[in-house]
Amino acid sequence: METAADPFPSDDAAMAHAVALAERGRGAVEPNPCVGAVLTTADRRPISDGRHERYGGPHAEPNALQAAGERARGATLFVTLEPCSHHGKTPPCADAVIAAGVARVVIGTEDPAPHVSGGGIAKLRAAGIEVKVGVSEEACRTLAAPFFKWLATRRPWVTAKWAMTLDGKTAATSGDSKWISSVQSRALVHRWRGESGAVVVGAGTLRADDPHLAPRCRDFGLSAAPRVPWRVIVGSTGTLPPNCRLSRTPEDGPVLVTVLEGAADSPLPDHAERLILPPAPHDPRQVDVLALLDELAARDVYRVFLEGGGTTAGSWFDQGQIDEVRAFVAPKLLGGAAATTPLDGRGFPTVDAAPALSGLRAEPVGDDLLLTALTSVGESPGTCWFDAAREAGQRSAQH
Amino acid sequence: METAADPFPSDDAAMAHAVALAERGRGAVEPNPCVGAVLTTADRRPISDGRHERYGGPHAEPNALQAAGERARGATLFVTLEPCSHHGKTPPCADAVIAAGVARVVIGTEDPAPHVSGGGIAKLRAAGIEVKVGVSEEACRTLAAPFFKWLATRRPWVTAKWAMTLDGKTAATSGDSKWISSVQSRALVHRWRGESGAVVVGAGTLRADDPHLAPRCRDFGLSAAPRVPWRVIVGSTGTLPPNCRLSRTPEDGPVLVTVLEGAADSPLPDHAERLILPPAPHDPRQVDVLALLDELAARDVYRVFLEGGGTTAGSWFDQGQIDEVRAFVAPKLLGGAAATTPLDGRGFPTVDAAPALSGLRAEPVGDDLLLTALTSVGESPGTCWFDAAREAGQRSAQH
Repeated sequence: METAADPFPSDDAAMAHAVALAERGRGAVEPNPCVGAVLTTADRRPISDGRHERYGGPHAEPNALQAAGERARGATLFVTLEPCSHHGKTPPCADAVIAAGVARVVIGTEDPAPHVSGGGIAKLRAAGIEVKVGVSEEACRTLAAPFFKWLATRRPWVTAKWAMTLDGKTAATSGDSKWISSVQSRALVHRWRGESGAVVVGAGTLRADDPHLAPRCRDFGLSAAPRVPWRVIVGSTGTLPPNCRLSRTPEDGPVLVTVLEGAADSPLPDHAERLILPPAPHDPRQVDVLALLDELAARDVYRVFLEGGGTTAGSWFDQGQIDEVRAFVAPKLLGGAAATTPLDGRGFPTVDAAPALSGLRAEPVGDDLLLTALTSVGESPGTCWFDAAREAGQRSAQH
Repeated sequence: METAADPFPSDDAAMAHAVALAERGRGAVEPNPCVGAVLTTADRRPISDGRHERYGGPHAEPNALQAAGERARGATLFVTLEPCSHHGKTPPCADAVIAAGVARVVIGTEDPAPHVSGGGIAKLRAAGIEVKVGVSEEACRTLAAPFFKWLATRRPWVTAKWAMTLDGKTAATSGDSKWISSVQSRALVHRWRGESGAVVVGAGTLRADDPHLAPRCRDFGLSAAPRVPWRVIVGSTGTLPPNCRLSRTPEDGPVLVTVLEGAADSPLPDHAERLILPPAPHDPRQVDVLALLDELAARDVYRVFLEGGGTTAGSWFDQGQIDEVRAFVAPKLLGGAAATTPLDGRGFPTVDAAPALSGLRAEPVGDDLLLTALTSVGESPGTCWFDAAREAGQRSAQH
């Protein structure tokens, strides 16, 4: 049965649809990867699609296959990540693809996980299915980059977000920053908070802005967020003013307040936890971000949303712990030698010393431009984690 | 005779072609506006096009009409700016359009010049030609904005350019800035210099970078620049080191060195001129930028290309004398509380106090993104100069 829908004009176009579907799983599927799948006829007319919707639920491929039923026979499957070949929480997807009679499989990027790593592709090919790997690979690696990092390090993915003027200022000389970005941009920020396991600001931002840090999706007309993130204050003293918004809103999620080893104890509300951390290797006045990420991982945090300010984000950058940047650029100039900028800290002494970002792009959001990039090193986003994850897989396979 | 070319899909598409043509006149047509014209059949099949190529030469419309010959009869003319209705260096374009038998004229934006200001449109309509005004108006006003400013103020258009990292830094903490932007971006900068009557940096940049400031278009594989710009050092002391690149390259254009009233005299090479300026109203240590722009206008400078650094650009911004921003954003993060940013100076104390920019957009250049915007106030770019120019025209018409 042919559908009435127009065919995808290219493999890349079909894969772009799979990527967009997959992204809807952010915040719900972790520590699994976001995966999307599209089934089409041989001439790329859409038959069905599916995505990994939540951790523990079916993967993208069986969702798409089930929706297609008998129409999957002889079809082409576009999937953002190599189908799995192992029995985990669900049966192997490669087996389901073979059983459904799919004729051709187009894969965005290989899965470096120890129990997959080419095994899914080999299984499909052994069953006589035509397999093409590496379509829209940059987009598919970017999509799966948090998963690749998790495989390689067991630490959460860190997205730094800021809003700045076209001259790179995050606040005016008075400290005022309300509002640099448009209401549409701020709505996106609330959605991103709700896709994260932790939302982080520094003690300076706590004092200056008295932030709430919860995803207020309803206030912006968005559907409910998949997660209630930890609200994390990164500082050395471990204090939380009793009248601040974080103290007054226990119903909006737990609070974590970091403190440097040896600092004095101070009272916290019941919904707030004190987390004692060692000092950062490069600066004894800052907390060790790697230790914090390990503690967050132990609390099932797979995505960290770092909202600043410049001192805190600079410290994380100095410790190499920013994986991704989402920067809103507003149509304003503020000027001012004393105005604040997104990343302070020590910084790199020379331009050549700073690593190149991957995948820099801009899209309009309200009156702003949203600029996004990954800090991973290498030709395409996620390369560093991808390679590390693959190595980890190979080591694991050898033992 | 029909041409084989595909028709433009919309009026906006035909006008976009006219805008692109017009932009090729930058640096050669001033103080006239850049104007482009496209002649098509009634169903928008291209017949011919033309642009204003150089000051004193024919306008865009006669160039397009001449190329079309008899095919202009019954045709549609797309033109970025209202055709003129007066005898200047050339006969009135409105008369030529009427004489050629054009059936329909689509105009990007009205010409607020005292001797035009709706007169061209009225003349065309009186001759029975169908006239549509305001197609792609934002793009056409942006194109003509330097001309509108000139009409209203008799001062040159100021374009501030900088290259920054995604975290808004123009140099690393050591002062190193080579190279933040890609080679493709730097080639564009040389082209823009060659479209300008003056290229400006501050005394700090002179000391730190020993810049050359000339358009080295050939080094970047570009065609020769239309102008040899003044190379301007904005500072309070009026000095130029005898061994600096500006001193050693008299063949690459004249040099202007500003000095505050009352400063001591110091020797300059023959190709360099000392310009004594009053202090800025807001800061007695800075020169008055308005006075400098008046002096540049007296030297036939219609476009000023302001290359920084942050102190100088901040001073111009504080004095309200930046009309346009072209900011390259490189796929890098530098960090560093001590790193420099594009605009220093006093700045605005609050976000609300900062005026909104118009027409913010991004386009890829090499690995960078080029972000552009106008600082004009109002709904569309150039509005402030447009309205001021129209008022000046009305006043002039009343006298």
